[in-house]
This record gives sequence, structure tokens and C-alpha cells, in this order.
Amino acid sequence: MPSFLDTRDADFAARFQALLEGKRESSQEVGDVVNTIIADVRARGDDALVELTNKFDKANVTPSTLRFTQEEIEAAAARVTPEVRSALETAHARIKAHHEKQKPADHIYTDEIGVTLGTRWTPIEAVGIYVPGGLASYPSSVLMNAVPAKVAGVERIAMVVPTPRGEINAAILAAAKIAGVTEIYRVGGAQAVAALAYGTKTIAPVDKIMGPGNAYVAAAKRQVFGKVGIDMIAGPSEVLVIADSSANPAWVAADLLAQAEHGAGAQSILVTTDPRLADAVAKEVDRQLAVLPREQLTREGWEEFGAIITVASLDEAVELANRIASEHVELAVDDPKALMPRIRNAGAIFLGHHTPEAIGDYVGGSNHVLPTARSARFASGLGVLDFVKRTSILGCDPSSLAILAPAAVTLAETEALDAHGRSVSIRLNR
Amino acid sequence: MPSFLDTRDADFAARFQALLEGKRESSQEVGDVVNTIIADVRARGDDALVELTNKFDKANVTPSTLRFTQEEIEAAAARVTPEVRSALETAHARIKAHHEKQKPADHIYTDEIGVTLGTRWTPIEAVGIYVPGGLASYPSSVLMNAVPAKVAGVERIAMVVPTPRGEINAAILAAAKIAGVTEIYRVGGAQAVAALAYGTKTIAPVDKIMGPGNAYVAAAKRQVFGKVGIDMIAGPSEVLVIADSSANPAWVAADLLAQAEHGAGAQSILVTTDPRLADAVAKEVDRQLAVLPREQLTREGWEEFGAIITVASLDEAVELANRIASEHVELAVDDPKALMPRIRNAGAIFLGHHTPEAIGDYVGGSNHVLPTARSARFASGLGVLDFVKRTSILGCDPSSLAILAPAAVTLAETEALDAHGRSVSIRLNR
Repeated sequence: MPSFLDTRDADFAARFQALLEGKRESSQEVGDVVNTIIADVRARGDDALVELTNKFDKANVTPSTLRFTQEEIEAAAARVTPEVRSALETAHARIKAHHEKQKPADHIYTDEIGVTLGTRWTPIEAVGIYVPGGLASYPSSVLMNAVPAKVAGVERIAMVVPTPRGEINAAILAAAKIAGVTEIYRVGGAQAVAALAYGTKTIAPVDKIMGPGNAYVAAAKRQVFGKVGIDMIAGPSEVLVIADSSANPAWVAADLLAQAEHGAGAQSILVTTDPRLADAVAKEVDRQLAVLPREQLTREGWEEFGAIITVASLDEAVELANRIASEHVELAVDDPKALMPRIRNAGAIFLGHHTPEAIGDYVGGSNHVLPTARSARFASGLGVLDFVKRTSILGCDPSSLAILAPAAVTLAETEALDAHGRSVSIRLNR
Repeated sequence: MPSFLDTRDADFAARFQALLEGKRESSQEVGDVVNTIIADVRARGDDALVELTNKFDKANVTPSTLRFTQEEIEAAAARVTPEVRSALETAHARIKAHHEKQKPADHIYTDEIGVTLGTRWTPIEAVGIYVPGGLASYPSSVLMNAVPAKVAGVERIAMVVPTPRGEINAAILAAAKIAGVTEIYRVGGAQAVAALAYGTKTIAPVDKIMGPGNAYVAAAKRQVFGKVGIDMIAGPSEVLVIADSSANPAWVAADLLAQAEHGAGAQSILVTTDPRLADAVAKEVDRQLAVLPREQLTREGWEEFGAIITVASLDEAVELANRIASEHVELAVDDPKALMPRIRNAGAIFLGHHTPEAIGDYVGGSNHVLPTARSARFASGLGVLDFVKRTSILGCDPSSLAILAPAAVTLAETEALDAHGRSVSIRLNR
């Protein structure tokens, strides 16, 4: 059974707090194993990488077959149906068009006393993209990571993807080809992250590693953080639907189930001002579950972590939404644009009855890599800004230095940093 | 002795690599201690916080005296000299003016098929600022963290600062007052980070924790990351000066020493096209060291980690600078603006002979919290963007949904996410 809450219930505060704090991930203790794997790849390079890959992925690679050849990529891309290729191309074009608008502009100016000040953006030189194997091997995620990198101007994109028993999802390579990614390796797990961070003979090191993965990949990303940048540690996916009486219960139910079918701790929450809608959605969820191919997994996700919360007003809904800080927030209400500015903590907001979250997963144009586990309070979804970095620019001439010098020297002395003060004052004594 | 390298030496590549990989920090293994402290503060709240504070800081606080009163802040602020107050006010005004220009703009638009797409920025609600005690307790750092938070629109700023033996640097509170920070607690160490992340009765939890600290503070930030956001894990400070024959050896030496006086692994590197300048700077460093109050610490920093690298051309200097990816890069050359665009990996770039790095530490207006330890390859200095987060906006109407639906459904099916596809197609069957 999912949770049913009502803000007018006496125990609401406690139950809502429990919902907020509910742990949806088993914290596998894999740190030590990952530590050993990283040390092994650092010490033995390709030899370790190949051994670990053949062991964990039951594959049969050698250093010379680690990288997909251009012919292999072309051949795989040719195996997807024209329909899938066309859908990937549509998604690619829309994601590219939207992310082009995220490119930050340099801003260098001279202030009123003659100091040059500014912000300059530079693409990161080399980025690694981790693509999971198995069930969660999504071609759409290849686009969501590779397109902003390309738009940002990243020169080198190295993609890693495990090939269990030597198998690869052709759509993954088709998506990579469409996105212009040509450097792809058949490796995964902590060993792939180690290779990207420290480099081997075959895989040159990168500056930042992006992309989701299992507990081993997440632990490896945490461990190499500092040596390289990382995007985020992704948690289970989640949706919060805010609905009023204008919402269609069947559509809302379909959206809750779309999230629940991710399994692995995914969470779907409905917050509604309309108790009849709450009932109708609950019934619709049961009805629709019966026809889903992944019924068992989806049902478990819904029953373990799903919740329907009835509230007295949209004001209450806004307050709860901001405390939940969900990855995805759907506004299935009569006037979504009026409500939107009040939802301050959300990875992405979907406006109105005709914007199912799944549109954003694929072809809306916005990025589907978004902050989970309440981190939308402080974190943002993936975008072009994650593939660039900012350098400050500062320039004084003799006259502006003379104006600023007394305050700088005073502060340096206050901080007992005399050499700091001296580096300023020495330029005045001519 | 600092290192002396020349790109024309046979062993240059190996020695440069050693310089790049040189470890400047002792990696204290404090993870377990910090883990225990965090668990204690989570379990016992203020009681643990007060006990740990009184033990580690030899202080004498109670839950009711944890927070500085407004009167205490005013009194401390009144203790600084008018000269220091005025210098802090100058710094504040300049930092504020520059950071105002960093505020990102929302961008919401409707595309050619009628889809609403956009980026909306929201300030983080509550931020914690850690201010170290002891030697590295810098009022300038209070401004560098608090001003961008204020400019971003952060509603609540909670500052923590340890008060060893009950003592506080009055300039810290003066800087806080000037920046408009009113919520300040006499706590530090891992216990302060735990309180900010999880909250106690006295200290409400925040969403993100900023600011430098010792190994315990750094480990605590790593451990609470995910529950809250963190800024970065700051390493030892560093400067790279690129100089040609137009540079003044005494000024360059003063800048190298300003960095070296931070001690604790700080690194100063000169890269020059002029062998005579290399010699002259080395001599000047020795001469100036003799007159510094912190001579011993500064000499040790310079001799252990300092380096002078002679290169054949500015092209070589650029290449080395981009591999070093220094926190601060000074361009002490004839035409700094021509060289600037080629330096792609740097936290901040200082243009020309009249821009000592120390100006940027205090009153230039740019932020002095910058990426260290080669992380300028992928990371940026602190700014307004660190105190806001981005929410994606997506909205379809019936017609644009109908256009996008086929590609979305195809991709959902390819990924075996049938409920995703169904949440789209169900909206078409009316």
C-alpha cells in the first residue's frame, strides 16, 4: 500500500517527516572494494582494466579491443530501426537547440577607477561519460550527457560502457554517433572510473566524469573526486504531482506509474486539493498497473514508496513541495504558470495537464539529469554550465593600484600576512 | 632550495611531472573521528555540540551562549580601528559591485512548435559559512563568502566560528556586521559542520555549507555532502607567475613570497622566458625573506614547494601553465591581454605588472575563493552561481505534445519503459 496522508490529520506532521526522511537506497558498503580496484588500475593500467572487465562483465576484451572501432560503431548504429534513429535525431536536435541557449557569455569590463574585472568561461578540455549497462542502459542518457558537452565546446569526450557477455545495446552506439562521440570503450564499473580519472595506456585521463551508475560506480566517483571533477551522485528518481480538481485522474496515475517503473527506490507522490481526485487516482493506478509489462516492479515501487497527500489548499501544496524538493514536479492544475514561481525547490517543473514528465526524459529539449533525494534545495540539473569553468580576470594600472593599495595593505596587516601587504606596497615605491 | 627547471634540460619532462604530482598536503586520516562526532551531534544535538566545543576549543559555552548576541557583535565591531573598518567597507563595496554583475537571468521562451522551455534561478534558502579560528581566521574570507550569498538573495546565512579559549578576532565580527550576517555561533570543527547539516535545537539546519577549514572540517564536509551541498574542498594556496624580461624582479619576488607565507603546502612558481630574470628573482626572494616577520614559515614554503622554470618562449609558458592549472596566474609580461585568452586553466588571472595577486585577495572585487590543486581544469571560483540553483521549466500544449509524442513513445519503448510511453500516449486518446 502506498501512504495516504491528509494535512488535516492529527499525525500529519510526524508522518510527513517520516516520508521525507524515508531511506530509499540500501547503502551498500563497497568503499573498500572500490578502493582496491582503483589502486589496481592505477598500478597496472590496461592489464588491470582488462582483467577486471573480463571478470566482472564476463567479457573477453584485450587492450587492443577495449575501444570500439569506427566500423563497430557504424555497424551498431545501422542495426537500430529507422523509427528509433529518427526519434534519437529528433531528441538530439531539440536537446541541442535548448542547450545552445545555456551557453554563458564572458563579461569583462573596466570599472570607474580603471580596474579591469571580469568572468571568462572556458570549456573543460576532456570529459568522461559513464553509461551503465544492463537494464538502465539508456540511449537518451547518452544524449543528455554528450550534447551539453558538445555545445560547451569540450574537445574530447571519452565514453565508457560495460558490455556484459560482450553484448552492447545498439541504440547506445547509435545515440553516441548522432551526438558525435567517437571515443568509446567497452569498460564499466569502478575500473572504468579509475581509468578515466588516472589514465591507462589506452585511455587518456579526463578532467571530469559524468553519468549515473551502480553503487560501485558512485563510490568510485566519490573516491576520485578532487583528482577529477564529478557531476553528482545520482539517487533514485522521483516525481511529485500537484493536482487540483481540473486534473485527469488517469493521466496523473500514468505519470505516477512512469516514475514507479524505474524501481530501485523510485518515488511517486501526489499532492492534491481534491479528495475525490485522490481516490480516483488510487483506483486508476491499480487499474493501469494490471496492463503494464513491468507490473511487479512498478507495483512494488508504488506500494513501498508512493504517497497520496490530500491538502486543504494549493498554498499547503506549495509548502509541502518545497520541503520535498523533488527531482520532477508536475503542476497538473488549472493555472500552472501562476503556481510555478512559488515552487522554489525542484529539479524541473512540468507545466499543465499536457506535459507528462516523460516528455522531458526524451524530447522536450531540457535535460533529464536532475538533482534527486531533496538535493534540489541546493543543486541544479545537468547543463552546459557543468562542462565549462569560470576564470576571474583582474587588472590594475598604476593609478587604480594606488587607489586600492591602502585598504589592501591594511587588511593584509590585520590578517598578519605581511608579505601580502608588501607585494602591494613595493609597487608604490618608485 | 626551491626547484630550478629549464625546458631545455634533458630531464625536464620527468622533473616537471614530479612537480605536478608533488603532494603538498599530509592526508590526515580523520574520517573515523569525524564520523563519531557527526553521529554524536545528530543524536544529542546541542548537548554534544556544547561538550565538544568546550573540549576542543577550551571554551566555556552553554546552549544559551552558543550564539553571539547582537550586542556582542556590535561591541566587537566597535573594537576594530577606523582604518580597518574603512578598509573592510571598501572591500565590501567592491566585492558587492562585482558580484552583482554575476547574477544569472531567468530565460523562459516558447519554441517554434509551442513548447515552453526555460531556466529559472532561485536562491538557496539557507547557507552555512564556516570561518576558521586561529592563524587562518581571515575577515576577508567572511566577505568573500557572505557577499555573494547576500547578492544571490539567500534568506538565511548562519556563520560558525570557533573561539579558542573564548577568544574571537574582532575583525571577523566586524566583517560579518558589514556584510549583514547576524546569525553567528561560537562553534567550529566537525561538530559545527554536523550542526549546520543536521540541525540542533539552537542551530537550524542549512541547505549548503561553504568555507575553508582544517582536515576535520574538510572530512566533515565530505561526509555531510548529499544531505547538504558543499562548496569545494580547499587545498593549499598557489600562484604561478609568468614573466618576460619586462618584469620587475623585486615585484615578482614579493608576489612569490606573498603566496609562500601561507605555509601549509602553499606553492609559488615562476615561469619565465628570461634566464636573467630567473636569477634576479631568486636573489630578490632571498633578500626580501630576511625582512619578513614570518621569515621561517615563508622560507620553508618557498624552499620546499617553490620553483623557477625557464622556458624558451611564451608558448612554452602557456603550455606549462595550462598543465599546472594554478589557483592564481599572474601575467607579468609586456602584453598581458594578448596572453590572457591562451591561459585556459586558472582560477584567476592577474593582468600585468601592477596587479599583485594580493589585490584580488582583498579589494579588487573578484572572489578570492578559487580552485586549488589543479582543479581549475574543471572547477570555478566562488561566485553568485554557488548560492543559487537552476530549475528547468517545460510546458506542452495539446498540439506540441501531439508533435513530440511519437518520438517520445518510440524512445520509451526502446528503453523498455512502457509506463513512460503510456503516460504520453494516454493523453492522445481523447
